[in-house]
Amino acid sequence: MKDDWKADLQPLFNPRSVALIGASESSPRSRAIFHNLREFGYRGKIFPVHPKRNEVFGLRCYPKVTDIPEIVDAFIIAIPRDFVVPVLEECAQKGVQAGVIVSAGFAEASEEGGVLQNRITKIAEAAKMRICGPNCFGVANIHERVALISGADVRHLQPGKIGIVFQSGGLLNLILLAAWDRGWGVSYTISCGNEAVVHVAHYAEYLVRDSRTEVVGILTEGIKDPHRFLAVARLGVDLGKPIIVLKIGKSEKGTKAAQAHTGALVGSDAVYDAVFRQNGVVRVDDLDDFIETVELFSKRKKLKGERLGFIAPSGAECGLIADIAADVGIHLPELSAKTAERLRSVQSPFLTIRNPLNAPEQYTRKAEIFKECTDALLDDDNLDILGFRLPLPRLREDKDVVDRFGDLVQAGQETDKLLIVFSRASVSLPEYWRQLLRQHEIPFLLEYRKGFKALKALMNYDRFLEREREPLDSQVRPDVDLTKIKNLLQSSEQTLTERQSKQILAAYGISIAAEALATSAEEAVRIARRIGYPVVLKIESPQIAHKTDARAVEMNISSDAEVRACYGRIIKNAKAYNPASEINGVLVQEMVPGGKEVIIGMTQDPQWGPAIVFGLGGIFVEIINDIAIRTVPLTRHDISEMFNEVKGFRILTGIRGEPEADTDALVQILLRFSGLAMDLRDHVSEIDINPLMVFEKGKGAKVVDCLMTRKL
Amino acid sequence: MKDDWKADLQPLFNPRSVALIGASESSPRSRAIFHNLREFGYRGKIFPVHPKRNEVFGLRCYPKVTDIPEIVDAFIIAIPRDFVVPVLEECAQKGVQAGVIVSAGFAEASEEGGVLQNRITKIAEAAKMRICGPNCFGVANIHERVALISGADVRHLQPGKIGIVFQSGGLLNLILLAAWDRGWGVSYTISCGNEAVVHVAHYAEYLVRDSRTEVVGILTEGIKDPHRFLAVARLGVDLGKPIIVLKIGKSEKGTKAAQAHTGALVGSDAVYDAVFRQNGVVRVDDLDDFIETVELFSKRKKLKGERLGFIAPSGAECGLIADIAADVGIHLPELSAKTAERLRSVQSPFLTIRNPLNAPEQYTRKAEIFKECTDALLDDDNLDILGFRLPLPRLREDKDVVDRFGDLVQAGQETDKLLIVFSRASVSLPEYWRQLLRQHEIPFLLEYRKGFKALKALMNYDRFLEREREPLDSQVRPDVDLTKIKNLLQSSEQTLTERQSKQILAAYGISIAAEALATSAEEAVRIARRIGYPVVLKIESPQIAHKTDARAVEMNISSDAEVRACYGRIIKNAKAYNPASEINGVLVQEMVPGGKEVIIGMTQDPQWGPAIVFGLGGIFVEIINDIAIRTVPLTRHDISEMFNEVKGFRILTGIRGEPEADTDALVQILLRFSGLAMDLRDHVSEIDINPLMVFEKGKGAKVVDCLMTRKL
Repeated sequence: MKDDWKADLQPLFNPRSVALIGASESSPRSRAIFHNLREFGYRGKIFPVHPKRNEVFGLRCYPKVTDIPEIVDAFIIAIPRDFVVPVLEECAQKGVQAGVIVSAGFAEASEEGGVLQNRITKIAEAAKMRICGPNCFGVANIHERVALISGADVRHLQPGKIGIVFQSGGLLNLILLAAWDRGWGVSYTISCGNEAVVHVAHYAEYLVRDSRTEVVGILTEGIKDPHRFLAVARLGVDLGKPIIVLKIGKSEKGTKAAQAHTGALVGSDAVYDAVFRQNGVVRVDDLDDFIETVELFSKRKKLKGERLGFIAPSGAECGLIADIAADVGIHLPELSAKTAERLRSVQSPFLTIRNPLNAPEQYTRKAEIFKECTDALLDDDNLDILGFRLPLPRLREDKDVVDRFGDLVQAGQETDKLLIVFSRASVSLPEYWRQLLRQHEIPFLLEYRKGFKALKALMNYDRFLEREREPLDSQVRPDVDLTKIKNLLQSSEQTLTERQSKQILAAYGISIAAEALATSAEEAVRIARRIGYPVVLKIESPQIAHKTDARAVEMNISSDAEVRACYGRIIKNAKAYNPASEINGVLVQEMVPGGKEVIIGMTQDPQWGPAIVFGLGGIFVEIINDIAIRTVPLTRHDISEMFNEVKGFRILTGIRGEPEADTDALVQILLRFSGLAMDLRDHVSEIDINPLMVFEKGKGAKVVDCLMTRKL
Repeated sequence: MKDDWKADLQPLFNPRSVALIGASESSPRSRAIFHNLREFGYRGKIFPVHPKRNEVFGLRCYPKVTDIPEIVDAFIIAIPRDFVVPVLEECAQKGVQAGVIVSAGFAEASEEGGVLQNRITKIAEAAKMRICGPNCFGVANIHERVALISGADVRHLQPGKIGIVFQSGGLLNLILLAAWDRGWGVSYTISCGNEAVVHVAHYAEYLVRDSRTEVVGILTEGIKDPHRFLAVARLGVDLGKPIIVLKIGKSEKGTKAAQAHTGALVGSDAVYDAVFRQNGVVRVDDLDDFIETVELFSKRKKLKGERLGFIAPSGAECGLIADIAADVGIHLPELSAKTAERLRSVQSPFLTIRNPLNAPEQYTRKAEIFKECTDALLDDDNLDILGFRLPLPRLREDKDVVDRFGDLVQAGQETDKLLIVFSRASVSLPEYWRQLLRQHEIPFLLEYRKGFKALKALMNYDRFLEREREPLDSQVRPDVDLTKIKNLLQSSEQTLTERQSKQILAAYGISIAAEALATSAEEAVRIARRIGYPVVLKIESPQIAHKTDARAVEMNISSDAEVRACYGRIIKNAKAYNPASEINGVLVQEMVPGGKEVIIGMTQDPQWGPAIVFGLGGIFVEIINDIAIRTVPLTRHDISEMFNEVKGFRILTGIRGEPEADTDALVQILLRFSGLAMDLRDHVSEIDINPLMVFEKGKGAKVVDCLMTRKL
């Protein structure tokens, strides 16, 4: 792709020399930048730049970047907004390949700032300068000790495999604190700000391709480069590197605040949900979930299955664990008879043997009993994942407990089952415990609800990876005469007539109710006879989209005489409703026999393109917004997930002794509809099939009404 | 009440002398008990008791409690299970008024243990000994420095106003850790174990009546004494002392684990929800929520309203805050024009002025700007509650930030609006910050989602208090001839016939469809003519509850001839369905015209008595379990909440241009039904009104079918 260079971020993350533009001992920000760089252990050359100083931080200072007599790989600019563009032009002139613009006041602040930001983009694009920001804290490469960063302190971070890209510097700081608290090893931290040049998708691509990075954590208010982001998501799935995203701006309120901050185009949140789900991106809801999910994913194993066994030293706590597992949808199977037998020999007779297993607190005092409990659960074929709650973290270091933690770490290394240590609640960790986490790699999750949510996300992720290995369903794309369809679209009004809309559906092999246009009462009678009574009569006029409002629909007509009477009435009512309307005639349609009503729709998301909506007809959609959304192309997996998501779907599977509806036909129609939405994405802006009538198993489904709007 | 003495816990919490039964320097448990007592600062006398020692812990040791030559107020027993009962008998003989039994192995472990526990109960009841346990850690009175406690360490606790009653000692430990972490002041901590004598309700009553306790936090697997608990809940509401409960055993799995642990009778969780909601008890879902809710409630103010204003030093964070507030249902109104104007003078021009307010992190560096921001929001008439996120907690102490915290504390003291300090996520608190929390009283909530959930709970609690001050609705209880109804019940089979059930409803003034029993085809015709066509015919037989299954119902009958034909067919089908059934005749019923179907039911909860269920008829109940549950008596408030809870309720308020249904009539029927359920609680075990047909506004509602089961 033409901006591939933006994902090649070596010059930004590994510069041999750095220009500190705006260097000044009297500026706290400049001091912070210099100390971050120097104290973090940067080994390259540092060139302070300031128009009026000869020496800064004990180093020779240059008036301009172009005055530096050596090669400059990167810059970090922290100067008032209005000086940024000229300085950047000098950087381009000097051939600097990358840099950070800390300064704020650009697109996030005002239109004027937006204009300046556009100039930054243009200069950078022309010179292929990889620029982070503006309005950001900057970047740090933890392995190579490069910190081009202002407001964040990375000095306490240890190198490791977690890469962090946060649009917001403030929230990045929180994650750096969490990294310290939980003993994470970090590869890169990036506060990307306004993304004038390099976007979240480019950073993510760099991180996914980076050999040291295994997990990518992102905070964004909206993806700027959807196409590239999807390619990176696919790459992440292929390489088994999870991408975990906290996407802000779910609520309307949230959206407003987000737009104010970055000027990023924020798409509809439900479509983001669909896109992430369909592309193996792990979405989290808040910072706590982000932390637990990154913790678990960075220390995960390939799951052997989803059955969780648990040991906690308290009966009430076992009840709490079972409650929360049920809330989150995690299965705690019974222990096998063999395991129960084995535990009986070491458990107190006062304690029941079940899952979760109530082990006495004292079991941490006795290495052999602890080992027997652990081994019994590890050997249980009913269990795939083991959770442990040690009596930890305590205020004071307890040798027994620390030893048992060591035992668990070792057991975790010797088994292919995933072992997870849990805390009961989010209380502060004591320092000795933080040390333990730094020294040993075993997932440690704080509080059951958050922990189980992270575990559920891991289960879903692993399922997604499994699924990816199945061959992708080829879309059902019948041989369609696209030119004909596009001509039809071009000749229509913005809102197509029902008949036009259905012609397009029919071209994709989607069954529609039998119908034909009559331009006289007698023609209506002839059509009605051909279709067979009873029939429906509806006005056809490009100006009348809502035919019922115009009283221009008549149902269940069962004789020639009625057809004649209705024909006249419909024409009359339509003319009264809108005297200016052109009337093509009256549509005579078969009266579709009873079935289950469903709704299928398509809408165009400004970021992600066509999104397909599915729901049950009638009150379900209206009252409880019971719909599922996916972007195109739909796979059979997507459709099966949509069916699972829609609560009312059970109506189609035959409740109350009613026959099962033809869901196979429904799958076929959704696949064909997806093909249609992809083919016509540039031509159609909206489609509503409402209702599609789904008949009994084996009897198919028919579109009764459809409204299509074309793109102008 | 006869067990009022169990709530008079002075002897347990304030003993002048304590016998340590099972005292032994070689037992870690005994050592822990002694050190807890001594080091916590107990000022009374300590008498070690052990059959074989003369001196323990440097104190004279007695073979039996009866050998102690002085008055003994309380004991703490930590000896093997099988010795407990004889020792307890000695305590009774000695006249000890209270004590703790730490020992385990009773009802929680086995039937045999249950038998022993019953003996404990009997001995204690006879001697009026207030016993905590068995199978518990014990109790501590933090103000008076009394610690009769084994497995928990209370020495780090500061005295204050939070009383904690936890069934589980293990989980109590976690809360003690949280109390340390968050700087809570605690009045009492109680691990109550199996509640053989003193129940959670008694402890709660003592705490609610205690002048030092302002907030009561409870963990339970099931309330043993529902009547007393409700009285305490009412007392808590009257005194404005919130009772916060983490009730374990929501899931079936959870229920199992809970039963295993204590043998407590665990009622249906949904009924607990209803009971708590109807009695102003604050329910939380997990330990994290417990901690945040106790934190907020213990430092709350009477809310002036529910409109939240927020300041956070990050734009993206403001978006996150708005997202989570929307999820939780908290309203962030726009700032007033005046406030916006005022802020414009101090805010950076690059930051938008809205709510949440994105204040620059640097605002903590400048006391005047900080004060202006804070004051502007405090003065805003659009806001009732103020949330602040300082750049805290940081790793290193930052004088500016600490000063701003002090400013907030002071501002909080000077305003009647509630001020809350938030952290962004659950990361460990540094020690200096923990110190700040200990020194100052201002609510500090960890992470927005948990914090907002706690805030929402406070809003609901305040609403409940407001509501309580309104006069309670008197139940609608018409002049009912109860004797007649009870006779009817006694003469019926266990399942009443539809007609009998409806007679009882009618006695309470609930409208039923016009109907009468016919014992011949000709009588059926006469009744049908009187009622007016169309009519419905149904078999009446005490043995046939499911008439449709027997093909013994015919709808929409519109002529004498049809009545005659149907009559014969129904009798024939019923006999074929169950040849042994007694047939009373055929019920002739008016064909109730179209309305909206709702379902009203009553079920008996073993703990809480009659519970009323309300839902929309048809698929809503069936597919998405869209029901609301409340115990009796129902108030108008309860009913209005039930209407809000049921998602499908909108169908009754007139969607799709349909007329509004007669919800006033529905309210009347629910109030009458509640009266019926109260009157007949000892006689009827279940009632299903399905459907009740609700007509247009002003046109009432009618019961179409009803099934009632009597208690045997």
